[in-house]
Amino acid sequence: MKPCIVLQSDFGISTGLPASMTAVIVKLDPEIRVFDLCHEVREYDIREGGSILASTFPYWPDGTIFVSVVDPGVGTNRRSCVALMDNGSFVVTPDNGTLSYLYDRIASVREIDEKINRLPGSDDHHTFHGRDVYAYTAARLASGIIDFTGVGLEFAKETLVRFSMPTAEIINGVACGEITGAHDHFGNVGISIPNEMIKEVGINLGDMCRLEIIKDGIVIYDRIMMFHKSFGWVKPGEPILNECSNDYVELSINQGSFCELEMPELLREYDLSQYKVRISPLKEEI
Amino acid sequence: MKPCIVLQSDFGISTGLPASMTAVIVKLDPEIRVFDLCHEVREYDIREGGSILASTFPYWPDGTIFVSVVDPGVGTNRRSCVALMDNGSFVVTPDNGTLSYLYDRIASVREIDEKINRLPGSDDHHTFHGRDVYAYTAARLASGIIDFTGVGLEFAKETLVRFSMPTAEIINGVACGEITGAHDHFGNVGISIPNEMIKEVGINLGDMCRLEIIKDGIVIYDRIMMFHKSFGWVKPGEPILNECSNDYVELSINQGSFCELEMPELLREYDLSQYKVRISPLKEEI
Amino acid sequence: MKPCIVLQSDFGISTGLPASMTAVIVKLDPEIRVFDLCHEVREYDIREGGSILASTFPYWPDGTIFVSVVDPGVGTNRRSCVALMDNGSFVVTPDNGTLSYLYDRIASVREIDEKINRLPGSDDHHTFHGRDVYAYTAARLASGIIDFTGVGLEFAKETLVRFSMPTAEIINGVACGEITGAHDHFGNVGISIPNEMIKEVGINLGDMCRLEIIKDGIVIYDRIMMFHKSFGWVKPGEPILNECSNDYVELSINQGSFCELEMPELLREYDLSQYKVRISPLKEEI
Repeated sequence: MKPCIVLQSDFGISTGLPASMTAVIVKLDPEIRVFDLCHEVREYDIREGGSILASTFPYWPDGTIFVSVVDPGVGTNRRSCVALMDNGSFVVTPDNGTLSYLYDRIASVREIDEKINRLPGSDDHHTFHGRDVYAYTAARLASGIIDFTGVGLEFAKETLVRFSMPTAEIINGVACGEITGAHDHFGNVGISIPNEMIKEVGINLGDMCRLEIIKDGIVIYDRIMMFHKSFGWVKPGEPILNECSNDYVELSINQGSFCELEMPELLREYDLSQYKVRISPLKEEI
Repeated sequence: MKPCIVLQSDFGISTGLPASMTAVIVKLDPEIRVFDLCHEVREYDIREGGSILASTFPYWPDGTIFVSVVDPGVGTNRRSCVALMDNGSFVVTPDNGTLSYLYDRIASVREIDEKINRLPGSDDHHTFHGRDVYAYTAARLASGIIDFTGVGLEFAKETLVRFSMPTAEIINGVACGEITGAHDHFGNVGISIPNEMIKEVGINLGDMCRLEIIKDGIVIYDRIMMFHKSFGWVKPGEPILNECSNDYVELSINQGSFCELEMPELLREYDLSQYKVRISPLKEEI
Repeated sequence: MKPCIVLQSDFGISTGLPASMTAVIVKLDPEIRVFDLCHEVREYDIREGGSILASTFPYWPDGTIFVSVVDPGVGTNRRSCVALMDNGSFVVTPDNGTLSYLYDRIASVREIDEKINRLPGSDDHHTFHGRDVYAYTAARLASGIIDFTGVGLEFAKETLVRFSMPTAEIINGVACGEITGAHDHFGNVGISIPNEMIKEVGINLGDMCRLEIIKDGIVIYDRIMMFHKSFGWVKPGEPILNECSNDYVELSINQGSFCELEMPELLREYDLSQYKVRISPLKEEI
């Protein structure tokens, strides 16, 4: 069975753009199965695209070919590449930071040679490499028309564009990290602190804890709330710090939107790393 | 050919959550065909999820495996189950009312034993049973790894969480029911009164009728309008009561949104059953 | 391998309507592969539906069966048809102008005989021909149950409902056309002027040019901007006229939304042809 292709982009779903990528693949080889990962990545938000790709990557079959197109530099001189991952999967993407979150799993990376790997007849098209270069190259790989060496010349993975990754650490018994995600839908706030680190500072499931959000050195949110397995452990409308299934904690409101109700500015912010988070156990009174 | 799996949720389409369910299935058995029913069920709206599932259920092949995840109780002690339907199909879902609309078609129901039917490695994840339990269990059923008895212990279907169902009746020659749906898109309003009942009170296709909406005992909408087969029988911008293809009448505005123009509060309301509807034939003047 | 079916509609994605079409096809013949083109065509916007269909049509395999349902006339007396295209593909659609953009590629067209080609049991349903007539007819064609003559009687393609097509011409050295598209997502503005025509009036890649938009004889936008291959050639936030991959120029703002920032009224306008565009080379000072 041929590998499947999984498509991601910031194209939205109100045009024919995502389907055009599918079409190119199906036309080249009707046996290839095509899946959509997400086409509502926030427009131009390379960090979000890379993060979504990384969070679902382990759940797909080894050998899957991913196409990720969040590509503000389309038509300019940015490099296009295919990364071979440690499980035999591939990621086809512009070299613009998308691969930062999966960097440690990259085995080898090659630049797409557009002289060879470009949809015939598309030479005059400069705004839709998702269709004309990335989906087409993925289809050629999946169908076996080319192997990895047929993509183009190998280059050093150290030269890939990379974002700094969110960090977390324990400082004086406080778990310190930053905001990593804020979504319209559900309105939860992702935090760079692993579930395990919360327990290391002495906060157990069901305990109350203190959560602060700091921007530009100023505390803009400070509240006592429960830490538990999921948002359903508090009453509807109440905030909670809960373990998320990506292994990091998140800030939620049960059956409500934390972002909408408490910090709508997060939804419009591209660099969420400005928002630092401190999570402390409650000190017992002596 | 293996049964297909049809996925529904309130996860929205701006993250990788729906695709993660697909990934788990495809990774377990690449031969299973996966379809999306709808991932834009209103957040936490179990009634809407159950209603959408029921309205499309008859159109899928017998034997289809449905996964429906509108799950405000995820990570708490709510029960997870698989229902075997009268046509050999299955519904995999939290036991939270989702099955109310298909209750009469349930042949037998079993609780998912998460010790057996849980994605390996996911024991510490408490917020994404859609991926870790429901999609995974559906994939095991579809691939034949387990049969229905392998889901877990059977329990009495009478103990399922159930919503009261919308009703309709004729009182003094007036068709009386309630609002059952209100959608952003198109802006039509679903009503619990069957197409046939309108005719029973003497209103025929093309007739004018009187439509009242009552909340808390107060008439909040009262208008004379046409009853016909579809919204296209009145001029653009005019309201009409029309037969809907789910066999119940709906309130529409031709090429406009009834909800947006007349009753935007419906779009924010979870318990639409508070809105009662009365539809009367026009009395002839003597 | 059976032909694939590609579905398009203005149904949106927050209900089970698009999936109901898929269900009917899969139930009739599980071997047919079904793809979604776009279900977020603007509500009732037949022009947009026809345009999206035409822009992706060439990328799908020859012989594909397209179903396009933007159908404000559903349940009234408008004609339903199947067009056989010059590459062996089919388009199944209401005869309401959707086929205007692909008119020249139509080889032959037949009216759907709903006595034969209608989902059994759906005779009383008048609001969902997408499911009951169009998807069902497409599935019968794809599965080989009927051939093209089984659709119904042939009629003269000249009698199809047709929109006037956007035009462009060079007048006194100025490229003149009209606006053809305006999208929420990305916020770019499509223009009826071919990439090539810009060069014919002496504007080359990287040149500055003058772009005017005129409505009702009044110039409502007038600005000097760069013409280039893609929006990435100016700084973020700056407007640019760029070549689009549909072979026509578009007006963009790099990493911003032209529509939202400059002309939000375009997003609410159904007849964009009222907005005329003039693109002129900059005259050298003597």
